[in-house]
Order: sequence, then structure tokens, then C-alpha cells
Amino acid sequence: MPESRNDARPPTTLSADPAFPLHKGGKIEIRPTVRVRDGEGLALAYTPGVGRVSSAIAADPALADEYTWRSNLVAVVTDGTAVLGLGDLGPVAALPVMEGKALLFKEFGGVDAMPICLATRDTEEIIETVVRIAPSFGGINLEDISAPRCFEIERRLQDQLDIPVFHDDQHGTAIVVLAALHNAARITGRELSNLRVVISGAGAAGVAVSQIILEAGIGDVAVGDRQGIVHSGRPDLTEIKQALAARTNRSALTGSIEEALRGADVLIGVSAGTISEEAIASMARDSIVFALANPNPEVHPVVARRHARVVATGRSDFPNQINNVLAFPGVFKGALSVRATRITEGMKVAAATALADVVGDALDEDHVVPSVFDPFVAPTVARAVAAAARADGVARR
Amino acid sequence: MPESRNDARPPTTLSADPAFPLHKGGKIEIRPTVRVRDGEGLALAYTPGVGRVSSAIAADPALADEYTWRSNLVAVVTDGTAVLGLGDLGPVAALPVMEGKALLFKEFGGVDAMPICLATRDTEEIIETVVRIAPSFGGINLEDISAPRCFEIERRLQDQLDIPVFHDDQHGTAIVVLAALHNAARITGRELSNLRVVISGAGAAGVAVSQIILEAGIGDVAVGDRQGIVHSGRPDLTEIKQALAARTNRSALTGSIEEALRGADVLIGVSAGTISEEAIASMARDSIVFALANPNPEVHPVVARRHARVVATGRSDFPNQINNVLAFPGVFKGALSVRATRITEGMKVAAATALADVVGDALDEDHVVPSVFDPFVAPTVARAVAAAARADGVARR
Repeated sequence: MPESRNDARPPTTLSADPAFPLHKGGKIEIRPTVRVRDGEGLALAYTPGVGRVSSAIAADPALADEYTWRSNLVAVVTDGTAVLGLGDLGPVAALPVMEGKALLFKEFGGVDAMPICLATRDTEEIIETVVRIAPSFGGINLEDISAPRCFEIERRLQDQLDIPVFHDDQHGTAIVVLAALHNAARITGRELSNLRVVISGAGAAGVAVSQIILEAGIGDVAVGDRQGIVHSGRPDLTEIKQALAARTNRSALTGSIEEALRGADVLIGVSAGTISEEAIASMARDSIVFALANPNPEVHPVVARRHARVVATGRSDFPNQINNVLAFPGVFKGALSVRATRITEGMKVAAATALADVVGDALDEDHVVPSVFDPFVAPTVARAVAAAARADGVARR
Repeated sequence: MPESRNDARPPTTLSADPAFPLHKGGKIEIRPTVRVRDGEGLALAYTPGVGRVSSAIAADPALADEYTWRSNLVAVVTDGTAVLGLGDLGPVAALPVMEGKALLFKEFGGVDAMPICLATRDTEEIIETVVRIAPSFGGINLEDISAPRCFEIERRLQDQLDIPVFHDDQHGTAIVVLAALHNAARITGRELSNLRVVISGAGAAGVAVSQIILEAGIGDVAVGDRQGIVHSGRPDLTEIKQALAARTNRSALTGSIEEALRGADVLIGVSAGTISEEAIASMARDSIVFALANPNPEVHPVVARRHARVVATGRSDFPNQINNVLAFPGVFKGALSVRATRITEGMKVAAATALADVVGDALDEDHVVPSVFDPFVAPTVARAVAAAARADGVARR
């Protein structure tokens, strides 16, 4: 039943849905990497042998990166307020998603990841809790925390911690979007710097996407929310959207998103708001449409493809799936491999460029991003991220 | 070099010590238990399939025990203030020990366990942090947190959480000591209820051991610290020791530990204070000596054996090793298997009784506890703990 697989509502009988038996008992486990088969093994892996390793780390804390699992371990932290496209389900119901994330971290990036679901949605409490548990982790992946709290939580955690803090709903999406945009521009014979881009959605993903494409040199970007295009004349803007208004919309648009699309080269939809076929038809020739709302894209890809040259969605059942799993495993693998203290904008852009290049000769309208199962994706992204960390001076080795 | 293996000091060159290569990269990892090999697998294990599981849990939170790994997952929480016998090494240096614990949880009990090392030693902050991360765990194992904070932290966490909270340094030790005492009494033809017991050490383990042996029906117990026997006339007692004075020492002893040992049946040493050969010699005929300080027992086992009938230590290189790994994997496996809301005194006594019985026909002076590698230990303890949880009304299934 392909229809039911793209539906997030639970079925009336759980046993009728293959997702439930697959989730029985969870999707991850902790496994020893050394075996203790006898007293001698126990005396090395546990007391008294382990005491010598602990004493050595107490004398030189940097040894913890070498003699514990920490330097390859990420905490996947959520408060359950923005679970997938489903909204505020709470911390316990978010756990299957965090387990899935941990599974993908290991399967695609070889990175250990641990779900941490918080029984608080208070910004201060989330920050102080993550700071307190941080000593045993090499990185923090924030996940499914609703806007606008996610922005402050990420920024302040990164200020306080010397390990990478990365809100994947923002930056993972942004990296894959930029990679796809690179390749879509190549196919349509454009330069990134000449594109006129409209982003529909000013939440976590919309803010991060606008940030990375500005960073990549695209000057003409307009962002819209439910009230229309974000511009500095609007009295209803949050602090984040005021900053967005200051950095974007150099054409000083003021109307609806659909009005802004007239003649635009690129639509990036990262919200559930729908876009009409007429608006897509009004875009520039050889237009680029990324309709990433999941499971229901802003415009159906088949409809968009009647007018646009390149169409991408978040779905696995259409070409050009914009899936964060193309980014986060390699991004963290690369950052952890050089013990980076943070993930800079430069590292994100490097990840996007590397990801775009992985497509290689396969590049065409229906292949602007690689398959998530392409085994070269994570290593290539990791290498580029590690190099960028060194270039940006945030690598510790 | 058997001597160096029982020494907790780090060697001058790390490479000369086999504990270091064994600890390289840590001792545990996160592993997927389901594979995602294609788009269909990804659509079940991650979005959109996982969204249906999350939605089902949001509607009925109890489903989290069935469709996540939580019900088999324990957080191993420390602040690094009392690491093994080494003292206050801090949270980062404690990590190898917590990884070792997680390794033993899985290897011996089939229980997933996750190290959490806290960057705080404040009682209130530790409690609130553990409460906030609790939604994604099935149990909390407190580890290497110094007395007296460990008592309050455990009690208040258990009051606030409906999952088991267990300070292993206290109760794991207590369970194995009681099991060993059961069998030592059998061998020497005594009844538990007739034993006169002296406990040397009134820290975490001393308090818990005194509690469980009172629970098991031994009425004559005296506990000593560095100032001598704890009695209600002493002006220097902490709150915990006042409670201890009220519950123990029915013979109203007031002198030193060594004085108290005259004619005593049992010595249980759970501190680093040494006990002289003369004091051991002054005990009752067929005495029982558990000298558990690690790596240096209160009295050398060879010396103790000249006078005592049964001698146990915490070391693997002498008979009768009192090792917590005999208890905690089975205790948590049993508690988690019935979704117990707490670990009652009854469950601890049941664990001890079951552990004592595992020895079976092998019982003699040098075998009062089973080998830690006896594969029947954890399942037998787990079964007894689960039954006791049901009997005590704390099982949820």
C-alpha cells in the first residue's frame, strides 16, 4: 500500500502496518566492542585496569578522546515539540524518530548517536541540561525542537560548549538544498549568483536555507510566511524574522508568496502552505521547484514538472529526494574526525559543494542529488567538512 | 605482571599497559537492530513510517515500552566524585568506568546501558537533570557518586520517577554480600538470625549492606567508621549515621572496630581502613571475613584465612570474589522485564537469595558466591527479582 506508507497517521490496527513489527523493541542497541571472557579480560576492561585509564584521563583530559567512545558519539537531543511534520508529540513519542536518527548516523556515517528526549520545553532548562550531560559526548545534534526556541538554544549551546552543536532540521536541510541548487543551476546553465529565489516558510528550515544560500553568494532571496513576503515594513515580525528581513529581499517585495514567484528562478518550499499551479507557471523559463513539505509537498511534483525544469521533494517516491540523511552523517563524521569545536558556515557550504559533486556524470533533471544509498556520499562530505574545519581554524587535530 | 594489574595507578608509559590499547576508541558502540537497505526500508524505519509509530505513542504513551528500546535501556549516571576506589576524578575521567559498566550490563544481562557523565556535583542539579532526561530510559543506575549526596539523590529521584532508580555502589554490593553471607552461614552451620556482624565502613556500601542484612533478619549489626563504632551517643554523626545508629548496634558498643570484633561472627569491610591479624584472631570460631576494599583488602585474605573459616574479597585473584556484576545485570533485567516502577528491599533480598542458590552443589569455603562467568547467574537473579516485583506490587506487567 504505497499510499499508507506515505501517510503519518497511525492505522486503526497496528499489526496491519509493517512499520510496527519493525519497531518492536526499538531500532538500536548498545554493543560491547571488546569481549570479557575471563577474569583477565574483566581485570583489563573493568576494575582494576579501567582505573588506570581513568587516572590517566584525570591527569590529561584530552586522553578521553582517545580512550573512550566520546569522540565518535553524538547526543540526539529533542524536546518533542516539532516531531517530523507532526508537531508537538512530546518527548516519549519522539523517541522512535530519535532512534531512527541514531540508526542513520551509524548506518550511513559510522557515528554512534544516542537519543536523549527531554521532559522540558523551557529554553533555559534545555540549555542547562545539555551543558550538564555534554562531558560524555563528542557532539550535539538538536532535533525536532520548534522555532523560534531552536535558534536561541543552538546559539547559546554552541557558545557554552567546545564541541559541535548542530540543529539538523535547519542545517541538514539547508546543506542538501544548497547542493541540489548547485546542480539545478548547472543543468539550467545559470550562475548561483544570478538566481532569484523565493523561499516559502520562515521556520527553522526556512531561516537556515536563506542563511546558507546567502552565504553561498545568492543575493536575491525573498522569504515568505503565512502573512506573505517578509519585509522590514511588516509590524508583526519576530526578532528572527526582523533579522531575515534585513538580510534578504533586496527587491523590496511586499505581497504574497505567489506574487513574488512571478519571474522567479527558484521556489524552495519548506512549509505546509500550498502553491498553485498558476504560480509555478508564472515563474521564469527553466524554473527550479523544491517542494519539500512532507508528506504533502507544497505543489504536487507531477504538476510542478509541467512548468519547471527541475523539481525536487522530500519524498522517496519521486525523483530528487532532498533528504537530510545525505548531510548529517558525513557532516558529523567530518567534524568529529578532526575534533572540531563547532560547525562553521564554511563547513556547511563545503558539505553542500561536496554533496553536489558526488552526483558526477549522473547529473540530469532527475538527479540533482545523489541517492541516499550512494556509499560515497558520507565519506565525501566528511572529507570536505574536515578540510573546511581546518581552513576555518576550528579543528583540534 | 599480576601486581600491576591490581594497581590502579597509570603507568609511566601508557603503551606498556595492556589496558590502554584495549580501551582505544572506547568499549561500546551503538548498533542498529534493523537494516535500511533501500527506500522501502528507510520509509518504514524513518519517515514516513516512523511517524505512524510516534503518533501511536502520542495517543497511548505505554506503547513506548513496546515500540522503542526504552524498556531495556538503563542510564548509567555519574558525577565522577567517587570513581572506583580512586575518589573524585571528575565526569570525563569517569567515562571509561561507565563504559565498562555498560559493557557488563549488556554482556551479562542483555540490558542496554548508556553512560551519562554529569558536569555538575550539585545535588539539586543532578536530580533535576536526571528527571529531565528520564523519558527515554527504562531505569536509572547511579554510579560512583560520593556519600552522603548519593543517598538523597537516589531517594528523591525514586520519589519523582516511575522507573527503577538504583545506586549500584550501595545495593549491588549489598546484594552480593548478603548472598555470600547466606552461603557462609550455611557452611558454618549457623542461622542468619543468630549472627553477630561488624561492618567496617559507613559510606554508601556500609549503609546499604547494613540495611539489607537487617532486612534479611540479622538483628545484631554494629557499623564502624574512622571514629569507631557508630552509636547514638556520638556527637559527630551525620543524618545518615544517626539513622544507622538508631537501627543498629543493639549491644550498645562504643569502642573501636577492632574491639567490636572480639567474639563477632562476621566482619564485612567496605572501606580502606586496615584490620589487624590480632583482631581477626579475636573473632568467634569459624568466623566469616569479607574484606572488600579494592585493590587493597582491609586484611590480606591469606592472613585472614589463618583464623577465619570463610574469607571473601573484591579481587579476582583470590577465592570468593564479591563483585557487583553478580547482581546489577540480573537485577535490572528482572525489574525491566516486568516494567517495575522501583526496586524494593524485597527485590534486593530475593536477588541475594537467588544468587546464593546458584552456587548449588559447588558450595564450600572457597565458593560462597558463583563465578561472574556462570551463565545462570543473571537469568536466575532476574527471575527472582521479577517475581518479587510482582509480589511487592510494583510490576506493571
